[in-house]
Amino acid sequence: MIALSGLSAFPITPADRHGTVDEAALRRLVARLAAARVDSIGLLGSTGTYAYLTREQRRRALEIALDEAAGAVPIVVGIGALRTDDALRLAEDAKAAGAAAGLLAPVSYTPLLDEEVFVHFETVATESGLPLCIYDNPGTTHFTFSPALIGRLSRVDGILGVKTGAKPKNEVAAQFRALGEAVQPGFSVGCSIDIAAPDALLAGAKAWYSVVGGTLPKATLAITRAAQAGDTAETARLHAGLEPLWECFRRHTSLRVVYALADLLGLCRAEPPRPILPLTGSARDDVAAALKALPADLAQ
Amino acid sequence: MIALSGLSAFPITPADRHGTVDEAALRRLVARLAAARVDSIGLLGSTGTYAYLTREQRRRALEIALDEAAGAVPIVVGIGALRTDDALRLAEDAKAAGAAAGLLAPVSYTPLLDEEVFVHFETVATESGLPLCIYDNPGTTHFTFSPALIGRLSRVDGILGVKTGAKPKNEVAAQFRALGEAVQPGFSVGCSIDIAAPDALLAGAKAWYSVVGGTLPKATLAITRAAQAGDTAETARLHAGLEPLWECFRRHTSLRVVYALADLLGLCRAEPPRPILPLTGSARDDVAAALKALPADLAQ
Repeated sequence: MIALSGLSAFPITPADRHGTVDEAALRRLVARLAAARVDSIGLLGSTGTYAYLTREQRRRALEIALDEAAGAVPIVVGIGALRTDDALRLAEDAKAAGAAAGLLAPVSYTPLLDEEVFVHFETVATESGLPLCIYDNPGTTHFTFSPALIGRLSRVDGILGVKTGAKPKNEVAAQFRALGEAVQPGFSVGCSIDIAAPDALLAGAKAWYSVVGGTLPKATLAITRAAQAGDTAETARLHAGLEPLWECFRRHTSLRVVYALADLLGLCRAEPPRPILPLTGSARDDVAAALKALPADLAQ
Repeated sequence: MIALSGLSAFPITPADRHGTVDEAALRRLVARLAAARVDSIGLLGSTGTYAYLTREQRRRALEIALDEAAGAVPIVVGIGALRTDDALRLAEDAKAAGAAAGLLAPVSYTPLLDEEVFVHFETVATESGLPLCIYDNPGTTHFTFSPALIGRLSRVDGILGVKTGAKPKNEVAAQFRALGEAVQPGFSVGCSIDIAAPDALLAGAKAWYSVVGGTLPKATLAITRAAQAGDTAETARLHAGLEPLWECFRRHTSLRVVYALADLLGLCRAEPPRPILPLTGSARDDVAAALKALPADLAQ
């Protein structure tokens, strides 16, 4: 069973205008992550635009990534969908293909109630048998998990962990203490939101589910290892080195920035799915300037 | 060209656990709306759970409704989708089937920027040729339209109106004045949110896109006609008669309540798509009690 710890790196899913995954480009991205020895690959996360791809293309992306990673790095894959039956089918696909775990977000259109989210997760976990990580991302799902609900879900067989957005520095210790107290022993409480994640790791988060890790895995892994070793100063130094990129994230959003970054690094030339527009003009120039401003060991 | 005025009644879309539309039940709901002579039917709105149904089932629901309405009442149909190409295909389906207009919501997972929403709407309107109504519902789409963006969209050929959530009584006049000033002459500014809609009609909203109208069309039409005639006292009297139902909407949400209501009225026994759960126990009892408490002329 996967441990859900360390760095989970979230690549974009290169695809054409019709949502057909670009196999060669995806292989390049996955090979880069596997070569960097990230702890897991977070395929088809929000950064991997899972919500915009068909079941068929999601299965295809997973099969390509598993083949390319060739067992060297476990793959955790987004299985979120609006409908419970669709999420269940995606979980079954993921299990059949060989994913290590599924990332399940409470994707919503009609705002969901706690009990509805509980039953949704319990149904998918129990009926699919795929180990699950709760994907807590209110910025995209518009559902807010209480620590009590995460605690309740941590007691469902097969739900192994949660990926939750790290709060700012002065609140993060209390946040992870409260979550740690709410959940079953052994349940992995991990974090997202790259700008705040290193402090969350230092405060006890078991895993960092990272957007930038999908494009700059070596830099992100160096920060993760420093934080796991409890080296506060080195963590802060490395994290500060990425500040030009964090400033781009704040101004232009992480998703749009990593698409531009992948192109600027020569990894792939994909655009995000419409209606999301690629960065152009001065916004793209900002990303190019940020990349140029990074220390050489962090630009990879 | 449809005028987008008066009462647009939004039925639920009865479907089984797998998302297959129940033709007989949908025909009963549509026949009831056509018999009441609502001004239009808002098929596959948020209340019609469009976001949870496949393209195939959405086309099927539209064809059934058009056949049942038989030209007596125009049908405005939800064509929202996460991807621009999917929304365009739904618009093309709607046009080919004979819908009077499409309701386009900026459905989002990744939060969208104003320019992205503008291009999305412009693309669907221009490439499909289907007349469109902007579906402004931040509670489900999590996108907030500024009056300036609605104004800009009102100048795109084929975008005929907007359905926007009515603000509370003390703000609604200013809201509709600001929108009226922002848009092109002739553009229809209409409202949703049943509890606040009658005041919005009195304040100049051209249309009421109504959840309860899909189940109690006669009551809703009576309120609409009173408001259109400028009869403030009668509008308030009728609207107050529905207060037991409004209280249920506040406590249990409008979507879940109208599913229970359709069952209690003997119209159909459908459940909302999972993960959304049907009301049970005391919540369902609340709806039954509210229905019983309505004046006879408003319980239909």
